[in-house]
Amino acid sequence: MNSSYCSKLEELPYQFDHHVILGEIRESRARRILLQAPNGLKQYMPLLAKCIAEHAEVEVLLHGEGLYGACYIGSFEYYKNLDIDLVIHLGHTPYPPGLGVTPESKPKIVYIPVYSKLRLSDNALARLHSRLKELNAHRIGVITSVQHVLEARRIARLLGDLGYNVVLPRGFPPYFMDGQVIGCDYRLALSVQGDVDAYVFVGGGLFHAIGLYLSTRKPVIKADPYRDSVEDVMALGERTLRIRYKKMLDAMDARRWGIIVGEEPGQYRPWLINKITDLLRKRGLEYMVIVGRKTDREFIANNDSEWFQAFVITSCPRIPIDDLQDYHKPVLTPGEALMVLQGDLSRYRFPW
Amino acid sequence: MNSSYCSKLEELPYQFDHHVILGEIRESRARRILLQAPNGLKQYMPLLAKCIAEHAEVEVLLHGEGLYGACYIGSFEYYKNLDIDLVIHLGHTPYPPGLGVTPESKPKIVYIPVYSKLRLSDNALARLHSRLKELNAHRIGVITSVQHVLEARRIARLLGDLGYNVVLPRGFPPYFMDGQVIGCDYRLALSVQGDVDAYVFVGGGLFHAIGLYLSTRKPVIKADPYRDSVEDVMALGERTLRIRYKKMLDAMDARRWGIIVGEEPGQYRPWLINKITDLLRKRGLEYMVIVGRKTDREFIANNDSEWFQAFVITSCPRIPIDDLQDYHKPVLTPGEALMVLQGDLSRYRFPW
Repeated sequence: MNSSYCSKLEELPYQFDHHVILGEIRESRARRILLQAPNGLKQYMPLLAKCIAEHAEVEVLLHGEGLYGACYIGSFEYYKNLDIDLVIHLGHTPYPPGLGVTPESKPKIVYIPVYSKLRLSDNALARLHSRLKELNAHRIGVITSVQHVLEARRIARLLGDLGYNVVLPRGFPPYFMDGQVIGCDYRLALSVQGDVDAYVFVGGGLFHAIGLYLSTRKPVIKADPYRDSVEDVMALGERTLRIRYKKMLDAMDARRWGIIVGEEPGQYRPWLINKITDLLRKRGLEYMVIVGRKTDREFIANNDSEWFQAFVITSCPRIPIDDLQDYHKPVLTPGEALMVLQGDLSRYRFPW
Repeated sequence: MNSSYCSKLEELPYQFDHHVILGEIRESRARRILLQAPNGLKQYMPLLAKCIAEHAEVEVLLHGEGLYGACYIGSFEYYKNLDIDLVIHLGHTPYPPGLGVTPESKPKIVYIPVYSKLRLSDNALARLHSRLKELNAHRIGVITSVQHVLEARRIARLLGDLGYNVVLPRGFPPYFMDGQVIGCDYRLALSVQGDVDAYVFVGGGLFHAIGLYLSTRKPVIKADPYRDSVEDVMALGERTLRIRYKKMLDAMDARRWGIIVGEEPGQYRPWLINKITDLLRKRGLEYMVIVGRKTDREFIANNDSEWFQAFVITSCPRIPIDDLQDYHKPVLTPGEALMVLQGDLSRYRFPW
């Protein structure tokens, strides 16, 4: 199975398991497949498609939409129109069951995680060790995003060797690997919250690390394999929290609300929408429901008008926090809207 | 039927026919409807929703997606998930039949044009008159976009009174009103091409006016009711055409192509995709098909990588021309791709 394209694939900084992918394609007897990948992995899709075409009699199409999570799977109607027999969704674990995709979904959607090959240097590890000592943290929870679960396991082991009391929370595959969180679900981190003094988050960016802080309010140190850096995210987490409280205070006086509802099956939560609209009605406030697929900043700006005084985004709780904190009207997460509408700001509720 | 909200609606600069909308809702016995509107009309949706709620026992949801044309109707699967009984699509005439929506589509989609109340001043009309005299144009085709069909009719009459030989091409409702063009379909203008010396385009922006020039290569004077201005668009049309030829020349050497396919039923044209991919194969060139819903600049940038040397956007021919003419790789319309792949640049082919 070692061909030119497939061997080139093996040289990439990510571990694409093309044997598993080819196995799924053969098993499905698919004639036309769709490759889905988050934006960061899209650059490797032509190579993967070529590798697949070398070994399977199948037409490979790429899905070009931004794929910010497993909740974002696209439309089965479109897949049918395009005669897609199998969807290979790379880089995410499946979204927890009950929202959208089922094993019976047609076409079948196969989730295949993609692992980063990046490793933290000994130098960065030493800095992590000294930062944890400064914090006087002995009991450490190791948390990660899906692409770094292998590195998180290694770091958990190394911290154990250094004498820390380390817990890498047990996952429940295929939905969560050991230690894995996603932008809107920190249940693995919360499951060990009482047993740890601090969390080490293994991964890049600030997206998951900030979410981890908002969920747990414990010290979070990020060990970033991309930058080979060790960063304390507590100050930024606290700043984010203060901004969120400011937004909630701004929304207290809003009488006309926009409730943003996601069309994506994985982002459509009727129970949550009903809970919020029931509260709005009970409090005599007006609202409009606005549905859409990519409910981002441009979406809010396009739909905004004098009528709206506050928005709640029920599709993805990270959009208000990460993309709209400088918007000129309050844009809240569902948890924040519930805090405001129930008049109880005592405990920050994240994400719903 | 004159209530506070509905009367406020009547004061807007656009003519929303709420009687027709309410009639459609009653006839459909819908319990939950979705209002769709282009971005420019979204600001009026809360008022229209309130007006509807005053007169019909129906839950009104707003569709927040950017709606750049009737081709962009969203997904019937999502409508079903959201329990939508009726879709009111404002501001566009239905897209020509055979692509997506049928009278049997469920939920039913009702297209309701919205007319601008803006009128060109006598002063602007005098300027139009003198510009047409300068051009020595006697036979005038009057063309417009849907929101200005009433004003186009008025201007056609006034130009006739001034002694011009005026033709307002006959439409075929509900798809095209008299004189109406859309961004990718200029058939009404082309139907009178041999009978006119120049076109007067009644409408705003440059989108339709440039398309009219690219389609007909005749003098185009824009009479803009928003700016109360009269503008010659030939120079810009020629400049656009030169840029398009530069893009085609750049694409001549491309060996690896990205073929962008629209998921939207109204933007999915398998016959066109097959024609282009057949030509690519015949010429021994490589390609990848990338499917998506909103196939805009961000989409191209996210999917671009070293592998791609040129792109063709088959979903909407206006995206390459209007949004990507400064992209660092050639991004072609289907017509341009056919010209390049057939090696014949003699006649500019628009849009496919």
